[in-house]
Amino acid sequence: MQLHDSMIKEIEKSKDKIIENRRLIHQYPEVGWTEIKTAALVARELESLGFKVSKGDVVISSKARMGVPNQYILDQHYAETLALGYSEAELQPFKDGFTGVVGEMKFGEGPTIALRFDMDAIGLEESLSTGRGPVDKGFVSQIKGQMHGCGHDGHTAIGLGVAESIAKVRHQLNKGSIKLIFQPAEEGVRGAKSMVEAGVLQGVDYVLACHIMANEPFGKLICGANGFMATAKMDVRFKGKAAHAGATPNEGNHAILAACSAVLNLHAIPRHSAGETRINVGTIVAGTDRNVIPDEARLKIETRGANTAINAYVKDYAYQVIKHAGLMHQVETEIEVVGEAVGGKSDEQLIDIIGSVAKRLNVFDEIVASDDHAGGSEDFTYMMSAVQAQGGKAAFFMVGASPDGTGGIGHHTSNFDFKEDALVESIKLFTGIVLSLL
Amino acid sequence: MQLHDSMIKEIEKSKDKIIENRRLIHQYPEVGWTEIKTAALVARELESLGFKVSKGDVVISSKARMGVPNQYILDQHYAETLALGYSEAELQPFKDGFTGVVGEMKFGEGPTIALRFDMDAIGLEESLSTGRGPVDKGFVSQIKGQMHGCGHDGHTAIGLGVAESIAKVRHQLNKGSIKLIFQPAEEGVRGAKSMVEAGVLQGVDYVLACHIMANEPFGKLICGANGFMATAKMDVRFKGKAAHAGATPNEGNHAILAACSAVLNLHAIPRHSAGETRINVGTIVAGTDRNVIPDEARLKIETRGANTAINAYVKDYAYQVIKHAGLMHQVETEIEVVGEAVGGKSDEQLIDIIGSVAKRLNVFDEIVASDDHAGGSEDFTYMMSAVQAQGGKAAFFMVGASPDGTGGIGHHTSNFDFKEDALVESIKLFTGIVLSLL
Amino acid sequence: MQLHDSMIKEIEKSKDKIIENRRLIHQYPEVGWTEIKTAALVARELESLGFKVSKGDVVISSKARMGVPNQYILDQHYAETLALGYSEAELQPFKDGFTGVVGEMKFGEGPTIALRFDMDAIGLEESLSTGRGPVDKGFVSQIKGQMHGCGHDGHTAIGLGVAESIAKVRHQLNKGSIKLIFQPAEEGVRGAKSMVEAGVLQGVDYVLACHIMANEPFGKLICGANGFMATAKMDVRFKGKAAHAGATPNEGNHAILAACSAVLNLHAIPRHSAGETRINVGTIVAGTDRNVIPDEARLKIETRGANTAINAYVKDYAYQVIKHAGLMHQVETEIEVVGEAVGGKSDEQLIDIIGSVAKRLNVFDEIVASDDHAGGSEDFTYMMSAVQAQGGKAAFFMVGASPDGTGGIGHHTSNFDFKEDALVESIKLFTGIVLSLL
Amino acid sequence: MQLHDSMIKEIEKSKDKIIENRRLIHQYPEVGWTEIKTAALVARELESLGFKVSKGDVVISSKARMGVPNQYILDQHYAETLALGYSEAELQPFKDGFTGVVGEMKFGEGPTIALRFDMDAIGLEESLSTGRGPVDKGFVSQIKGQMHGCGHDGHTAIGLGVAESIAKVRHQLNKGSIKLIFQPAEEGVRGAKSMVEAGVLQGVDYVLACHIMANEPFGKLICGANGFMATAKMDVRFKGKAAHAGATPNEGNHAILAACSAVLNLHAIPRHSAGETRINVGTIVAGTDRNVIPDEARLKIETRGANTAINAYVKDYAYQVIKHAGLMHQVETEIEVVGEAVGGKSDEQLIDIIGSVAKRLNVFDEIVASDDHAGGSEDFTYMMSAVQAQGGKAAFFMVGASPDGTGGIGHHTSNFDFKEDALVESIKLFTGIVLSLL
Repeated sequence: MQLHDSMIKEIEKSKDKIIENRRLIHQYPEVGWTEIKTAALVARELESLGFKVSKGDVVISSKARMGVPNQYILDQHYAETLALGYSEAELQPFKDGFTGVVGEMKFGEGPTIALRFDMDAIGLEESLSTGRGPVDKGFVSQIKGQMHGCGHDGHTAIGLGVAESIAKVRHQLNKGSIKLIFQPAEEGVRGAKSMVEAGVLQGVDYVLACHIMANEPFGKLICGANGFMATAKMDVRFKGKAAHAGATPNEGNHAILAACSAVLNLHAIPRHSAGETRINVGTIVAGTDRNVIPDEARLKIETRGANTAINAYVKDYAYQVIKHAGLMHQVETEIEVVGEAVGGKSDEQLIDIIGSVAKRLNVFDEIVASDDHAGGSEDFTYMMSAVQAQGGKAAFFMVGASPDGTGGIGHHTSNFDFKEDALVESIKLFTGIVLSLL
Repeated sequence: MQLHDSMIKEIEKSKDKIIENRRLIHQYPEVGWTEIKTAALVARELESLGFKVSKGDVVISSKARMGVPNQYILDQHYAETLALGYSEAELQPFKDGFTGVVGEMKFGEGPTIALRFDMDAIGLEESLSTGRGPVDKGFVSQIKGQMHGCGHDGHTAIGLGVAESIAKVRHQLNKGSIKLIFQPAEEGVRGAKSMVEAGVLQGVDYVLACHIMANEPFGKLICGANGFMATAKMDVRFKGKAAHAGATPNEGNHAILAACSAVLNLHAIPRHSAGETRINVGTIVAGTDRNVIPDEARLKIETRGANTAINAYVKDYAYQVIKHAGLMHQVETEIEVVGEAVGGKSDEQLIDIIGSVAKRLNVFDEIVASDDHAGGSEDFTYMMSAVQAQGGKAAFFMVGASPDGTGGIGHHTSNFDFKEDALVESIKLFTGIVLSLL
Repeated sequence: MQLHDSMIKEIEKSKDKIIENRRLIHQYPEVGWTEIKTAALVARELESLGFKVSKGDVVISSKARMGVPNQYILDQHYAETLALGYSEAELQPFKDGFTGVVGEMKFGEGPTIALRFDMDAIGLEESLSTGRGPVDKGFVSQIKGQMHGCGHDGHTAIGLGVAESIAKVRHQLNKGSIKLIFQPAEEGVRGAKSMVEAGVLQGVDYVLACHIMANEPFGKLICGANGFMATAKMDVRFKGKAAHAGATPNEGNHAILAACSAVLNLHAIPRHSAGETRINVGTIVAGTDRNVIPDEARLKIETRGANTAINAYVKDYAYQVIKHAGLMHQVETEIEVVGEAVGGKSDEQLIDIIGSVAKRLNVFDEIVASDDHAGGSEDFTYMMSAVQAQGGKAAFFMVGASPDGTGGIGHHTSNFDFKEDALVESIKLFTGIVLSLL
Repeated sequence: MQLHDSMIKEIEKSKDKIIENRRLIHQYPEVGWTEIKTAALVARELESLGFKVSKGDVVISSKARMGVPNQYILDQHYAETLALGYSEAELQPFKDGFTGVVGEMKFGEGPTIALRFDMDAIGLEESLSTGRGPVDKGFVSQIKGQMHGCGHDGHTAIGLGVAESIAKVRHQLNKGSIKLIFQPAEEGVRGAKSMVEAGVLQGVDYVLACHIMANEPFGKLICGANGFMATAKMDVRFKGKAAHAGATPNEGNHAILAACSAVLNLHAIPRHSAGETRINVGTIVAGTDRNVIPDEARLKIETRGANTAINAYVKDYAYQVIKHAGLMHQVETEIEVVGEAVGGKSDEQLIDIIGSVAKRLNVFDEIVASDDHAGGSEDFTYMMSAVQAQGGKAAFFMVGASPDGTGGIGHHTSNFDFKEDALVESIKLFTGIVLSLL
């Protein structure tokens, strides 16, 4: 089925509501695993549109979650949200770090198409400078130290827009199903794996997601973004033994000596013949005072590889280096994986469909089939891998959205903003793709 | 002149006052360079006893001070102390980190004898467990997070006791002079140098100091403690350049790689043929996040050597390692010396006098002439060196003072306490030594 | 002009002579900068065919040579070669490491086409196992410890074959010129730069070279081999100071501590965003005895980068690491570049021509336009860069030549051999390419 | 019993023979475990003087030997010695690295006194400069690359002189026994342990040895040399896996990365509170070529400690560092202890006796009771420990012997020489000590 002009017009009509949704979410950013307000909003909307909605631990595997904040933070945010007047009944399913929502709608026999939208904000204080959309139009973050600085507020609004546009044409559809997946904790690549392991992708034939790009011009579309490296984020703890550095240096187990040996050897992990690798020790905090043999050191590190296997090579090597760097000095080590994403490659069939739909919209003047430039990571790759492994297809596309009059704005900066027109165009793209596949 | 039995009895009579002074000081601990209350108390007492008193920047060289807290902390403490009702006139001379006091009394021509007493507390929360003197007898620290955990409250009380005992016999004395030096910031070996450079030791023929030892039995006396290693305390800063660790690792200057190379090479500085050395990197704090090339690393390190020259070898080598470890990675480095002490050796003449006086007291059952065991550092060594360099003599003695019924308590622990009888005996020792020299 | 069938047949007729040349050269391998016999043979042949021949220091820039053996080795080889009966007149121009030859032939106005052939052997003892061509057919190396183990004997024979085929058609040609460049010391990427700097490529419009691939099937042709990484080979010397390790460890400057710090930090040089890098410390030799502070350490290292700029990044970083790793321990360092090659990319125009010629030969059943797979290095890239910099075109092609009945043989192994049919086909390719360009 | 003047004269009479023995041994130096000629000479002399002689594996425990040369070297030296005309019957007992000799003589019941003399030379080419005793008097080493450069030729000659002087007075003695132990392989501290483990010291009540000091003036005597640090000499092998450094760096296991991490961490082993430590990586040899991931690295290292326990701390820590530095990079490690000595302290009783005997000789004008200055190591400490452990006493004395007109000459230099008068005086000392104890 095609995306007819009438449907395009229908989507255009919802533009105000879409933008209103985005701005509401922008004002109440919630960082990873605390998206209870956002999830409740999403669930309410999906239900009102007639979707069958699954929430919380039904769609989130508890043990596959990574980097969940401590219970104190979760409890505090829950209490504060109740205090704002939210209904406990609505929030309850998402309590304690289970902030996922899935809406399903079945039209008949045939393929299941899943679309994923991420909902989390980042820990950043939003800029109050004038000239920025959120300031000028009055929807800056109301939460101190948290901000939608990567566009996930837009993604969530897109998801709700797609839900509405699909609901509107449901009676014209007679085969297949659609699943709208609203994911928590994409930042730090912590959330996708838990939804995959909860079985959300089982039976899915096609899975797609997109990202708004404030650093690319509006009108540019990358149909298949393939440059995501596989990655692992790890917290490392070295546990030594304290002793007086002057009087009894031999009685300690020197955690800093162990940690620094690890650092040098981690960075010296040999390159891989099959593709790019990265490793970084980004932070160290260690020791108590200058005259004490340090009894603890903590590192935050990350590895990357051009694909999942290459990252596994670096990650496994890193485990080996850390363990034995510790043992050189009788220092014990613990490694916690706090984030992880696999590599991912969009399928040609979907890249072609995305391109075809985009051409019909007469908005995109630069349509790139695929882009392999190595950059950040994205845990949607877990969903891509899961669907591809069961014989399905996957794609991730990127929609240019630099604010008017700027040359583009960096993601994860306090001035982040994007052109809201990209929301409506993204909804058209998703709707068109879905119709093409049914 | 001898320490007659009548004088001993006179000192015994002051015991209650001595202990009262110590307990008062114990309740209001002040860390290095903030000893304004303590210094004001000392100055008031010395003046009332007829000493000529010098204060503040008269006895403290501004530029030779090391490790002075920042102005905010100094101002806040000053304001809080005024709020407690202290007189601004009394505090003013010691404002802004000039917390030294010197009291002089001249009896006639002849040698000048200087005694040094340190006054500072440490940043430690005092234990409230019963069974401890300060708790059972009701004089625990009233200042959160600060405590006299090394006995300098006792040292100050000893100094005031010596001032009183000398004042009482001043009319029997007809030659020489005495100088009572109350020093700030001995912890971290930060204060003595500034008093030496202010000229406090000029013309001094003998200088002595003592330390109460809560980890040695009462009744034990070490007449010449020689085991203090020369030392330097340094804060090191590595300034690199941040970059995205995944996208553009080559655009950063990696401060952690530089710092870790420095750490390993610092610990690998070759031993010295002429005596013991120590080096310790006690703390590292570096980096901002795991996916960022770290742009800064800070280390706290210390070096030690069996004597001043050996420590200089280690310190100079450390400078060289740090500078070039940085330059390996185009990382700039800064080193700030925040504490420093030279080595020190007590003179035989004074060791003999101390031993002779001690024997007369019938309290010390274990009198050790000298002890070379390497241990901590003590910045009184600056004063020893200064006096010895001008042809004078110096000694540092240690007085056993473990609380009754304990096998001794570690200094710098939250349970620190000492047997207050040691205060009176120390006053007798100082008084006897001074009389022997006049 | 096209490669007519008659010309192809003419080349086929020379097959025996071509193979004979190759086998002769194979029996008398000469390692880099000692190719006096080979160069003399080449010069004699070129002269007899009517080429204008330039030799020795006319075509080799003395100061741009890298990794020249010491004079003793050069002298010894020269003396031994004279003793074999070679004419001093023939050898003289190539004495002392000037073993290059260039033959030129001018047909008229128009483009100059240069072809490069490398002549050097490697230091490897040839296998005497039966089943190998050189053994079964009686032409194994007669020189102990030296062997043509990379096919440069074949390249030289190809060059002589091309010279003959061009000479045969010279009267049909009326424009342009040809230059046949016979290069020494390609192994270790040491020779090409010296010929470029001697001006051999000045005025050249097209430059081509090829490599026989014993590890690829006969019938496979890669028209543009682009995977050569830029590289630098460096010998590093650390000069410390010896001292007795037990008695006076502080009096030495420890070359091994400096070298090992360099090793770890060299391997930790950050990856580059623009492409692959490599670094390897391949050997260390250091120190005199276990109880002596080592006064010297020598490393052999190499860097690689996906292109010249990336390699320059790694090389410059390596200089910085080495210098300051030394200075951390007051150890002086010296770095000698003993081999170097830039990156290179074949031009599309020539790739197309090579492919067209190949198709006509009806021998190549797998013609690959270009291959970017990162592998070894090749100093022909200096010539490519030189010609491209002056507006010309360059290409490097690879000709499959695994011996019959094998799955391919590794280069630089003692069993190396290749299918000699590849020689004739390569001569046809070069001849056809030249004719296409004239 | 006393050393009477008549005995002193008797010893003086043998002076020519003593010096002749020394010069003969000097001309035919034999390095550790190859002292077959020397041992045969000693055995012959002892037998002729009436001692009961034990040889070879009777006095050498095969498995406790350290650093034995390989069989080829042993065989070659044996064959060469036979070729010089030595009798196979004499050499046979010492074949294959069993070059120890013990001569015993029993006088009656009572204490057993053991004296130890070491016999081995070092691998050093003797200087042929005139002005040196061996050159001017015609007894330089006849063996290329080997030299008595530490005075063990003198020690052996002293041992034979003591044997003769004791034999002369045997009929005046009626109690106790004497054991003269001639030890191989003292250099590298490799031989003593094997004689201790063979039981040579069982039942011994007193054990003594001495060292001639060419760097101290003749006339100086140190009765108890205590400054020998315990030590271990280790050869370390890292076994990695080779791979092409450019093409497949991830397929190797990098032995140099492992070894260099070990080097830095070995040198960073924390100091010990109880006394001096030393560690040195003296040599590294590793890798095959610059473009190959190195598959092997070999280190020669040594540790030292002020006493046996402190050295054990360093040695154990070193094992731990080496093992895990390897495992960081999947590199296997092997450690072979090739030399080892414990610490040692001379007993006061013997120090007093040595001093008393020395005074009677009217030769020593500077008699030092004991010297604790840390210096080299000496494996006689194994014998000291063994005897002290069974309740006996031990001492090691040092006899000044700088050649006339020099300020002293360094041991282990090619110009080494000593004043031969020290031989006779040492024989007098040993004889006097033995008589004092019987």
